[in-house]
Amino acid sequence: MDRLERQLSFLMEIDRQKEIIRQTYLADGSRKETDAEHAWHMAVMCAVLSEYANEPIDVARTVLMLLTHDLVEIDAGDTYAYDTEGNATKRERELKAAERIYGLLPEDQSGYFRELWDEFEAMETAEAKFANMLDKIQPVLLTDAAKGKSWTEHGVRKEQIIERNARTHEGSELLWERIRQIIEKNVEAGFIRGEGSGEQPSPL
Amino acid sequence: MDRLERQLSFLMEIDRQKEIIRQTYLADGSRKETDAEHAWHMAVMCAVLSEYANEPIDVARTVLMLLTHDLVEIDAGDTYAYDTEGNATKRERELKAAERIYGLLPEDQSGYFRELWDEFEAMETAEAKFANMLDKIQPVLLTDAAKGKSWTEHGVRKEQIIERNARTHEGSELLWERIRQIIEKNVEAGFIRGEGSGEQPSPL
Repeated sequence: MDRLERQLSFLMEIDRQKEIIRQTYLADGSRKETDAEHAWHMAVMCAVLSEYANEPIDVARTVLMLLTHDLVEIDAGDTYAYDTEGNATKRERELKAAERIYGLLPEDQSGYFRELWDEFEAMETAEAKFANMLDKIQPVLLTDAAKGKSWTEHGVRKEQIIERNARTHEGSELLWERIRQIIEKNVEAGFIRGEGSGEQPSPL
Repeated sequence: MDRLERQLSFLMEIDRQKEIIRQTYLADGSRKETDAEHAWHMAVMCAVLSEYANEPIDVARTVLMLLTHDLVEIDAGDTYAYDTEGNATKRERELKAAERIYGLLPEDQSGYFRELWDEFEAMETAEAKFANMLDKIQPVLLTDAAKGKSWTEHGVRKEQIIERNARTHEGSELLWERIRQIIEKNVEAGFIRGEGSGEQPSPL
């Protein structure tokens, strides 16, 4: 295969990113979003919100990281944030997927995109911290807009969201502060189960 | 409204980009893609194929242009490439949409993204030429993968595709050459109507 043919075959393969359905509903609650839509949304969010990064970030690199960070889900599937079993085998499934999918590209590009994904996963650079932060807050913003639709369906508790966002502040203290307010608002509205609720059945 | 609130309201408004359905089917033909998915796909294509630009391009700027170039369709709708009537009023509808949608952002960012869209539309810079080229060839690549599904549904003729791609070569001569081969292959396969076919009813 020539270089362009390999690139085109990768670009047609990743079309399947449009068929992976996430647990998060669109802002109007009409249906769940796809992986490709999620990646697009976060890339634009990155460009608009980069000023709030704790440390200055390379926006172009972060955008590219966000656009491609879920490609492994083409083989590995989307694992819902609060699915404990699925998350136990997630890493292994995703590593295998990365080998195959990035391997479709010519070697130099395969290495480049694989590095971007490794960087995202390692969450050490300012770019990776900001990208991971967006990956965690985007569903909160959408679910807030959709009146808690995926939280109520899964009976999600506040502690679960806080735990999942344990490192969100590393990307942006300011955005994390705003997200905490949004979480509180949804606890008050009854869309997120409050602390300890439902864990110990009432003695009455 | 504070700055962050304006940014978040823009970012939630553009979620509607996920609800605009294009005429192009996914590569496997299962359903039509959304505007958000189309923008995501082209942004990745841009990163992978930038080496084929006729003139060197600023990849980061082109990616951002592609991610946001269809936001106007939130108000103006998607106009199918071969819909003559719709295309007559397209420009006016889109200008009005740009005012409203970019206007949601703080002034500096509103200006920045509006400029990017104007640049895309004017198609004068190397970046805009490359972005427009991708916007034209992405549906050809997808429809080729989907065995001509949207071409056959609309009875699209080869001349129409060639006319629509009249300036594609300005973005990349090399990619245009490959696309021409793909068009020919689909004419031979009967998925695109050949020159003059169906225009004059056969005398028999």
